[in-house]
Amino acid sequence: MSTSDSVKVLAFDVFGTVVNWRSSVIAEAAELGKAKGLNVDWAAFADAWRAIYRPYMDKVGKGALPWTKLDDLHRQMLEETLNKFAISELNEDEKKHFNLVWHRLRPWPDSVPGLERLKSRFVITTLSNGNISLLTNMAKHAGLPWDCILSAENVRRYKPDPEVYLLVPQLFALKPEQVMMVAAHEHDLQSAQKHGLRTAFVHRPKEHGPGKAAPMPQVGSYDVIANDFLDLADQLGT
Amino acid sequence: MSTSDSVKVLAFDVFGTVVNWRSSVIAEAAELGKAKGLNVDWAAFADAWRAIYRPYMDKVGKGALPWTKLDDLHRQMLEETLNKFAISELNEDEKKHFNLVWHRLRPWPDSVPGLERLKSRFVITTLSNGNISLLTNMAKHAGLPWDCILSAENVRRYKPDPEVYLLVPQLFALKPEQVMMVAAHEHDLQSAQKHGLRTAFVHRPKEHGPGKAAPMPQVGSYDVIANDFLDLADQLGT
Repeated sequence: MSTSDSVKVLAFDVFGTVVNWRSSVIAEAAELGKAKGLNVDWAAFADAWRAIYRPYMDKVGKGALPWTKLDDLHRQMLEETLNKFAISELNEDEKKHFNLVWHRLRPWPDSVPGLERLKSRFVITTLSNGNISLLTNMAKHAGLPWDCILSAENVRRYKPDPEVYLLVPQLFALKPEQVMMVAAHEHDLQSAQKHGLRTAFVHRPKEHGPGKAAPMPQVGSYDVIANDFLDLADQLGT
Repeated sequence: MSTSDSVKVLAFDVFGTVVNWRSSVIAEAAELGKAKGLNVDWAAFADAWRAIYRPYMDKVGKGALPWTKLDDLHRQMLEETLNKFAISELNEDEKKHFNLVWHRLRPWPDSVPGLERLKSRFVITTLSNGNISLLTNMAKHAGLPWDCILSAENVRRYKPDPEVYLLVPQLFALKPEQVMMVAAHEHDLQSAQKHGLRTAFVHRPKEHGPGKAAPMPQVGSYDVIANDFLDLADQLGT
């Protein structure tokens, strides 16, 4: 593939693209619920927690909140979601631990073997709204072989602010087209394109649960459209 | 060891502590010199290049230079050193490539196996004045298994500015005493101590070449005094 010849760094979105946040949150919540004797629809709970992710980050983006790292936004979102589900049985330690479930998300089955292959040719880095410790702990927990952990926290701005996308070319002294953003979300890739980065769409039809697959993008919308990380590695010739 | 029970993150100085900068620079310089037919004392050249490291960083620390990442300081230092040795035979591409020798430094023999052991129990991160791309490329080149790449560049300040030492507790939401600075240089460890971090001295008697070993510190000066990274892993019970 000719595009990949000039690409030096692959920058990965993480939630949904590398890890299956939904099944991981449901599994850990169900375990906690069982221990506490709670009768809750944990899939609905996980979706509700995640549904306010974008609105909370927009509060930071629009200046309604000062810079707040994702662990701390997650905690505020957790309180709101516990209230919504009328769950009052968790003590402070339990809430603190449960809030860090985002540090313990499980990878898609192809993520680790795909990243290992991609790492042999490219620098592979996170480029996520997750904070640095979250991404570091997740990598350790899931065995993700990143060369580097980069985050919205490096620039204290959330995607889709330009500073996040421009961070990688700036740090690595590269042209934007030498960096490829990898994500399962078209809005992320479209923002990356706007700032001159190459783009790879990876299809993650199970991210939002059964029957909620995002459609495959139109051919030609991105430099690469892949079914998973192994397909991405094939297409990039690694 | 009781100290290590509460320690969660080990933060490593890199130049001299993890990698043997001197022998790496000499080896690559000698190769370049041979290709260009230059007759130079490359050990003296490497020492001269490194000797102006601290003065250049101090220019940034004191505001005589704006924030400048180490790759760019190294380039200014290289020009000064080439002038000092009256070397004018290198073209722009050769200087650009040679300047990045700091991305290609070789680890001490115990560094990789020691880090692998330490990684099984602690989060291991760089905490170096080297810029993020330098540390990332070095890790890839040398097989250093960092969990995270942290740098003076994260805070746009060089050691010994407090912001660098406080970065790790701040990012990981830890108390300073839950972070241990690992370095072969007492001034680095003394600064880390001043900000409440735990400290481990690792002896690297060959850093500055034959007959220039730094003395072993007095017993009790640091939480750990180790002969190398394997000894450090032993003493930290990993």
